[in-house]
This record gives sequence, C-alpha cells and structure tokens, in this order.
Amino acid sequence: MQGLTMTATPQAQCTLEVALGDRSYPIHIGPGLLGDPRWIAPHLAGKQVMIVTNSVVAPLYLERLKAGLADDLEVREVVLPDGEATKNLAHVERIWDALLEAGFNRRCTLIALGGGVIGDMTGFAAACYQRGVAFVQVPTTLLAQVDSSVGGKTGVNHPRGKNMLGAFWQPRAVLVDTDTLATLPPGELSAGLAEVIKYGLIRDADFLGWLEEAMPALRGLDVPALTQAIERSCAIKSAIVAEDETEQGVRALLNLGHTFGHAIEAHQGYGSWLHGEAVATGMLMAAALSARLGWLSGADVARVEAILEAAGLPRQAPSGMGSKAFLDHMRRDKKNLDHRLRLILLRSLGDACIYDETPLETLTALIEDFPRR
Amino acid sequence: MQGLTMTATPQAQCTLEVALGDRSYPIHIGPGLLGDPRWIAPHLAGKQVMIVTNSVVAPLYLERLKAGLADDLEVREVVLPDGEATKNLAHVERIWDALLEAGFNRRCTLIALGGGVIGDMTGFAAACYQRGVAFVQVPTTLLAQVDSSVGGKTGVNHPRGKNMLGAFWQPRAVLVDTDTLATLPPGELSAGLAEVIKYGLIRDADFLGWLEEAMPALRGLDVPALTQAIERSCAIKSAIVAEDETEQGVRALLNLGHTFGHAIEAHQGYGSWLHGEAVATGMLMAAALSARLGWLSGADVARVEAILEAAGLPRQAPSGMGSKAFLDHMRRDKKNLDHRLRLILLRSLGDACIYDETPLETLTALIEDFPRR
Repeated sequence: MQGLTMTATPQAQCTLEVALGDRSYPIHIGPGLLGDPRWIAPHLAGKQVMIVTNSVVAPLYLERLKAGLADDLEVREVVLPDGEATKNLAHVERIWDALLEAGFNRRCTLIALGGGVIGDMTGFAAACYQRGVAFVQVPTTLLAQVDSSVGGKTGVNHPRGKNMLGAFWQPRAVLVDTDTLATLPPGELSAGLAEVIKYGLIRDADFLGWLEEAMPALRGLDVPALTQAIERSCAIKSAIVAEDETEQGVRALLNLGHTFGHAIEAHQGYGSWLHGEAVATGMLMAAALSARLGWLSGADVARVEAILEAAGLPRQAPSGMGSKAFLDHMRRDKKNLDHRLRLILLRSLGDACIYDETPLETLTALIEDFPRR
Repeated sequence: MQGLTMTATPQAQCTLEVALGDRSYPIHIGPGLLGDPRWIAPHLAGKQVMIVTNSVVAPLYLERLKAGLADDLEVREVVLPDGEATKNLAHVERIWDALLEAGFNRRCTLIALGGGVIGDMTGFAAACYQRGVAFVQVPTTLLAQVDSSVGGKTGVNHPRGKNMLGAFWQPRAVLVDTDTLATLPPGELSAGLAEVIKYGLIRDADFLGWLEEAMPALRGLDVPALTQAIERSCAIKSAIVAEDETEQGVRALLNLGHTFGHAIEAHQGYGSWLHGEAVATGMLMAAALSARLGWLSGADVARVEAILEAAGLPRQAPSGMGSKAFLDHMRRDKKNLDHRLRLILLRSLGDACIYDETPLETLTALIEDFPRR
C-alpha cells in the first residue's frame, strides 16, 4: 500500500461521529468490539434489550454479543431466516410480536446483529414500536458496515418494489467489529466492495485511486486496509447524510448504480443477485450512460470496469432482461418525481450528479447495447 | 353563554398554528371548508392525491371533498370499513397497496377523511410510505377534530395492545369543517365531548366552567359554541404538543383517563365501547383516585361526574371487569417505564400531573370500589 494518500499509519480502532444535532451518533470501527461491554452499554436506553439476528449470524456471533451485555439487563432475542427474501412486513411483525410478548416498553433497545436486511428490518421495527424506540446497529457484513447501517434509512420491500415501506430512524450507535469479516463468504465481501467503490466514484477520486491499489489487500482480508476502507466510506456517507438526512437533494448521489441495480434485483427476484452485485452492474451502466452523454471518456469507463473486475463483481446485465423490463422497474424508483426519470450519473470519476434529462432513446439504446451474461 | 371568559364574539372561521419548527402546520376551523379549493390546495406536495376514508363517511363527504380539488390532480381513493376494529396493520397495508398500484411517488399527498381511526391509519401509512410522504387531516368527528387529528400521533392497534405500532408524523394541515358534525350520531358527539372536557380538567379551569354552562348548546349542535370548544381544545393540545412533541414529559398529561380507558377498551374488545366513553369513565376513575390521594375534594369529583353526565357519557366501569383485568392491561401501557405504573392524576381541577407512586393497594381498592354498570 505504498504511495497512497490515505492515513499513513492505519489505526486499529477509530470512531466517527454522524452529525445530526440531537440525533447524532458515533460509529466505532475496529476489532474485538463485539464482546467488550464498554462499547454497547452507553447506548442502551433502559434495561430491556431485544437482539434481532438471523439463523446464519446467530451461531457465529450471538453469544459473543451477549457476553458483552451486563447481567442486570433483560435480554431477549429474535432469530429470523437469512436472506433478502425475508425483508418484508411479515418478518418485522415477528419482531413486534416478540417485543409485545416480552412486555417491552418504550425505553427498550433493539440491537441489529447481522447484515443489511437485519439492520433495515430492525431499524424499521424500532421506528414504529410504540412510535419509536432506541436501536443499535452491529453490522456483520462489509455491505452493512459501509452502507446500510449508517444514515438511518430503514424499511422493507413490497412485492411491487424494493424499500417501498420504511422510515428514517437513526441508530444510537453503530459498532463495526472488523473481526466479523473473517466469516464472510467471498461473494459477500465483493458485494460490500461495490459500495466502497461507489464512494470513490461519487465523491473522492483519491480514494478511488487508493482502492485500485489496495484491492488485493482488501480481498485478502488485510485488517488495516479494511479498517481504512470502512472508515473512509463511512466518513463520506456520514458527511452526505449530515448534509441531507431525508434525501431532499445531495443524499440521492448515494444511489449511484442503484436505479439500474434495483431493476435487476426486482426483475430477477429479490435474493437472486446480491444487492452489491446488482449495484456494481448498475454503476457500470451509469458510467457507460455518462460516457454517451459526453461526460466520461472511454478510458474512464474502462477504469470503472477494471476496478469492479478486480473486486470480483459482475459487469454484465442478466441475460433475457430487455430494455422494457429495465424501464418498467426504473419508472417506479422512489427518486422519480411526477413521472420524470431521475438518474445518478458521473460528471467525472469522483463527481456524481442527479440528472433527469436523459433522452429516453439514449437510455434505451444504452440498455440494449449493454453486455448480457 | 353569559358571563363566560371565552371569546365575546364567536368567530365563524379561525386558524390556529401548531408551532413545531419546520414541521409547523395550521388548523383551520369553520363551516364550509370541505368543498372550498382555497383550503386544501396550498398543502398538497405534488399532483398525486390519495383520499383515505371509510364506508360511512364516503357517501356523506367524499364528493364534497373531491369538488374542492383542482382538475389537474391525479386523485385516487381507498374506502376502508368503518370502526375501531379495522385499526390494524392489515388495513394500513391496503392503503400501501393502493399507493403502489397507482404508482404514487414520494411527492404524493394522503388526505384522511373521517374519524380518529381513519386519521391514525392514514397518518401511519403516510409516515412509512417511501419513508414518509405528506398528509392532510380532514377530521369528520368531534373526537378527531379536538384530539387525534392534532399532534402527529399515528398508528394502529396490535392484538396485545392499543396503538402499539405507529409513528410521530405531523400533517401538513388540519381542516375542521364544522358542517360535518351535523351527521354525527349523538353518542359520537358525546364521545368527542369527553376529550373536550379533558382539556378543561388537565389545564384550564375557566374552560371547564365554560363547558359546564355551554353543554346544552354543544349537545344541541350550536355551531358558534362548537367552534369555540374546538378552538380552545385544539389550542390547549397544540401548546402541549409544541412543548413536547414526542411525549417525553408534559404531553403525557393528554392521557388523563386513558390508562383506565384503554384497559376498558382492550378488555371489552376494541370497538365495543367508544374511545371517548372509555376515557370518560377513566377520567372519573382518575379523579376518584386523586381524591383518595388527598388532592381533590368530594365536591370536585362530583363536578367531574356531573359534567360527564351532562355530556351523555358513562360514569361506571363494565360489569364483570375486576381489578386484576384492569391492572393486567394497565401494566402494558406505553407510559410505564421499567415496570412502574405511571398514571395521569389531578392535583386540582384544571391541573393534571404525572404520578408513578400510587400504592398498589390504593389503586386496587379504588378499582374494586368503583361503580359497575
């Protein structure tokens, strides 16, 4: 990692602050956080704690998390099935049922232990239980660590669209224990790297350059490199969220690749492609469209394709998914206003913009010309 | 209405402002608001409008409301069944399904046309649709006009408790068209008067005195008297909500009679007693308990009983509902923290307080001694 512009001496542990006035909260990043009582205790609202996790993460980390909770707490748990297909209202209702069965009051705290699906559902459950209770994010996937656990977006999918139901609800704290990445399947690590690359593409050309060099170390689970990538990603996301908590403007930039990506996920059925895989392909589509609009060069697009390949990510749309299928799903995107299609595109590498004037024929041609698997 | 301390010349139309910073909104009160385009148009977020109403209100007021909406709007409607028994997640899902079927985006506006149940469900649907969209309250019952449509509490019941799921979500505006009270059944008018009396009991002894004299006019649907009662009720509620939007403190005073009342509703099955009827009995129980604690005189309790009787409200608990049933339900109240029972009681008429030191034996004896139907 010579010649990089990032921190000269990588820190083993660091803390960022998400600045949102009286809803501000810390993100702690580093190894060994999970079983250490110092990190969770300050963020509990009362004595009642409900841990929400899934059947894959529970055997790996549930006991370690519980070991870090004080003996005088009333700790319960809900273990949900794994996967994006569970991200629906019926599973959030299971969390609510468990809270009511346990007689938990509005000073209880929910802890989300798992990936983005668990975090989004737990946050939504917390947002609406007795009109809002405390919750703490303990993300165990790279994707959740750099993206979904930060920023307060919570929710579930609806058969007619992804994340259609939800709330903005900020956690009391985010604990990123980098040790949890040791058990992450390589495909999910790559999916997380898609979002890391996204931060470089939308806001930070230096970080993008650093990532191009650091990619082998990241895929080899080098902890200082991972810590640094997570820290820079969370810092970029926090800054954008602090600027625009409820996505009235600049926050939409975080959706680079997501309009195309959500269409792929919806068309293929949620859970068939990993979210990060769909976003990776979507980012390449956004880059290629930006080139057709004259903003990026062919070399820029090739750089995007190369870093996605280095991260082990797909660069082709699903075979059999035509432009009509893409456009039908994209027209339902939450960013659209009064029937205008809004896309996040790249003015240059490291500088994204919101654009709603793409000619339909340019977009259609891009989708049709884009490589299929 | 001679000798009263209220407005000398009752206004036909008035506007109050709920002061909540960038979430502030107006409450317009008066006759003829429903079909007049001037009142709704300024509060619509975009061109898409979803009216949510029920099968009783729709035939009475839906067309009048629609007549006041401009021709270039995309107006849809959801007509739900009537009654408290419909206030559940399944019916909120019907609103979400309708929004998604119509392809409505995050700049749509929901309009709640109906009583408290419609307002609470529509507000909750708006709070969670695409993480929050605009909504306008058009309450058509006295109860909703003076209570549930003001203050941003939204939500639904759960089989294990009332209003257990929900969100704080403020409307863009509240339109109280007093003409709608002409079709309100007398029992529902009385139920609304219970909440009006509550404002006098918790904060305003003068208003209580005015109500004692004005009660025949109110029950006779005298429009200036009703307008004045609604205005003063909304003013007291707005002031309390502005002070404490998310019920960390003083807002809990609005729950006078509600802890007992919710227990009655839950025990009898939601919809069997009207909410206002249960609250009326609950307020008399709270007054009687306040007397046992030495704060109210017997004459004070008799005054409470007399004004409830004048309003046509019940003053007896359900036969067959013992102290155990009351206490079991009361222990699940959202106001309780860490297993302490918190009640709203009266230091004097016009001055309520939050109290969590009632000896269990005093409370149990009060419940057991209280008259049954």
